[in-house]
Amino acid sequence: MRDVAVVGVGMTRFGKLPEKSIKDLVRESVTAAMEHAGAKIADLDAAYVGNAAAGIMTGQEQIRAQVTLSAMGIEAIPMYNVENACASSSTAFHLAWTAVAAGLYDCVLVCGFEKLFDENKQKSFMALGTAVDVEMVAKFLEDFAKQQKTESILSKDSGKKKSIFMDMYAYYTRQYMDRYNLTQEHFAKIAVKSHKNGALNPHAQYQKEVTLEEVLNSGDVAFPLTRMMCSPIGDGAAAAILCSKEKAAQFTNRPVWVSASVVGSGKPSSGLDDTLTKRLGPKAFAMAGIGPDELSLIEVHDATSPSEIITLIELGICPGEKAPAWIDNGVMETDGAMPTNTSGGLASKGHPIGATGMGQIHEIILQLRGEAGPRQVKNPKVGMTHNGGGILGVDAAAMALHIFKN
Amino acid sequence: MRDVAVVGVGMTRFGKLPEKSIKDLVRESVTAAMEHAGAKIADLDAAYVGNAAAGIMTGQEQIRAQVTLSAMGIEAIPMYNVENACASSSTAFHLAWTAVAAGLYDCVLVCGFEKLFDENKQKSFMALGTAVDVEMVAKFLEDFAKQQKTESILSKDSGKKKSIFMDMYAYYTRQYMDRYNLTQEHFAKIAVKSHKNGALNPHAQYQKEVTLEEVLNSGDVAFPLTRMMCSPIGDGAAAAILCSKEKAAQFTNRPVWVSASVVGSGKPSSGLDDTLTKRLGPKAFAMAGIGPDELSLIEVHDATSPSEIITLIELGICPGEKAPAWIDNGVMETDGAMPTNTSGGLASKGHPIGATGMGQIHEIILQLRGEAGPRQVKNPKVGMTHNGGGILGVDAAAMALHIFKN
Repeated sequence: MRDVAVVGVGMTRFGKLPEKSIKDLVRESVTAAMEHAGAKIADLDAAYVGNAAAGIMTGQEQIRAQVTLSAMGIEAIPMYNVENACASSSTAFHLAWTAVAAGLYDCVLVCGFEKLFDENKQKSFMALGTAVDVEMVAKFLEDFAKQQKTESILSKDSGKKKSIFMDMYAYYTRQYMDRYNLTQEHFAKIAVKSHKNGALNPHAQYQKEVTLEEVLNSGDVAFPLTRMMCSPIGDGAAAAILCSKEKAAQFTNRPVWVSASVVGSGKPSSGLDDTLTKRLGPKAFAMAGIGPDELSLIEVHDATSPSEIITLIELGICPGEKAPAWIDNGVMETDGAMPTNTSGGLASKGHPIGATGMGQIHEIILQLRGEAGPRQVKNPKVGMTHNGGGILGVDAAAMALHIFKN
Repeated sequence: MRDVAVVGVGMTRFGKLPEKSIKDLVRESVTAAMEHAGAKIADLDAAYVGNAAAGIMTGQEQIRAQVTLSAMGIEAIPMYNVENACASSSTAFHLAWTAVAAGLYDCVLVCGFEKLFDENKQKSFMALGTAVDVEMVAKFLEDFAKQQKTESILSKDSGKKKSIFMDMYAYYTRQYMDRYNLTQEHFAKIAVKSHKNGALNPHAQYQKEVTLEEVLNSGDVAFPLTRMMCSPIGDGAAAAILCSKEKAAQFTNRPVWVSASVVGSGKPSSGLDDTLTKRLGPKAFAMAGIGPDELSLIEVHDATSPSEIITLIELGICPGEKAPAWIDNGVMETDGAMPTNTSGGLASKGHPIGATGMGQIHEIILQLRGEAGPRQVKNPKVGMTHNGGGILGVDAAAMALHIFKN
């Protein structure tokens, strides 16, 4: 397989952007990525576009890439419409990488976009709710509630919320609290760190620092989660240009190389000790030929703040018993030993689901090029992205992991 | 890029199957493909699943592969959810081919499925209607009606039908009638041939021969189309197993090789003389290293019967001026010089949109293996599939062409 480089990235600000259409979002992110790369439309051999919820939110299904890209004059080239829940656009990136690595194309565009915000919040929740096997989840929750006589996985008003995601995350988090002496305050500290990073990121949905007290008092979602630990609903798009080695040399002398690209799916039969992150992590490290200790920084899928530390544990980056000390000692801060979610992460940068994976990649590419401004990690060499999506049993339904090197 | 072989195919019967869920359809087709190949679940490295309308028809978006495949015990492997309108599953096949050709996987599953029939016909039409850029098509039709003062592209009651597809096909067909002396009777003859082939195909939605008079009198849709010239609404699934050369040898001594796999997208600015089929055909023939005259048989996207001959013209297989004679002389019959849609095609085998592309591939693989029973073409060497989808301007939005060799 051929070496593949990222030669440019671009994104919109994430946030509630009711004035922007899906065409606007795609145009803005793709134009930025092409300008960053110095690429023209004629350079593009193909386009891979990830989206999760446009069908429900805007009525546009089936040919979302063609509709959005042709509106900005990108037409006739092969276009691939990819879904994989919240991992849609990192899956699109993986498919683009595969094609360039195969030798099929020399220069391709990847874009992830989402318009998830709606005045009617139930519509957004309904869109999120299609990332599960509705039939199976209903049965699972019923069975689970029976087994756990003292505690239901569902919080009292989950029926009203019409989204089971936060209840699932909370349940999952409580297992980790028991196992590794993690407290609600630890997770609040992570949220404080996320918002601190987000405040330095002009593309973040939230750009305001918050205090520990503000996080703890921001409103209960499902113990131990409070509102400020949860990723918000929002819109946005992010894009990248991928090239073969030869083609990359035409655009930049600062290519960032894709050293691992792996996709995996959930296992409905698996439990908390056999998750997709645990299974997929070793494959990514093996493909990149590095150990977890060789990472300079990582963007993880913190749909809720506790997921940051849980993911670091599951990837073998942070030993579980050291998790409380890592948080207390600021190891995951931008100037710490394992900078995590320097972008602000999903909790602060935002989580327009089909754009999230490409948003993570955007951050890692900027960091590895030394272009991350006030949140720049010092001299990073290797960055990773961890992007999960959907629910299957207690597992993530979909996941894509990427490792990048200078 | 590595050689890639198809080692097994399977499909459900296409048709109105209200008793079957999307999980049932996927299970049935995938089980058949695995049995045909002699493959087990443990052999599968990844799965590529094409679907177009399950979001609207069943409410399941985002993780359709994971939901349907895990229900039959296929889990944890990488799964890719692919949309490309009526070309969804042939696009999934192309992505699977890319990955095996790249060396990323050795054995992968491809499946296309659709549940499009509903007692409420308007729901099916609404699902079909998401394969256009709604915004743009509305404007285009308005502009077009103004230019064409003597004739509107829309038939009188198209508003009621809530689907512009048949009007678009009819308009398109009328241009070809003028240009090449084709008549409504010619198209009726194609429909008679399709139904004759479908009657020999146990997987076809319609398995009954029809007469020329029956086709002509089956009810006007939009001149020159009559009802029996139009593909029906239906459900179904079709699947295939793809392998590297080394892996294929473990399964079969009758591999069928993928000698071309190309995907293209529409060009809203293009006209009838610069269509996606015209642009993409030469790329497929170049990749396969053959000319159109070297094909033994072809399955084309006959959403309506006239599209059969129009596609043969646009692909350079039939010279336009010879089109009436080709039809009159039975050139496209199973025992003719260019057997076309031996399966019955979309018009007779059926058109469950996300399954259609894989249904075409299913037919070509059976034919090349000599397993097509009473509709077997004599000693075929090279087969092609042509699968289009959606509308962008007057162009198809998406398309995948494949060429297979023994």
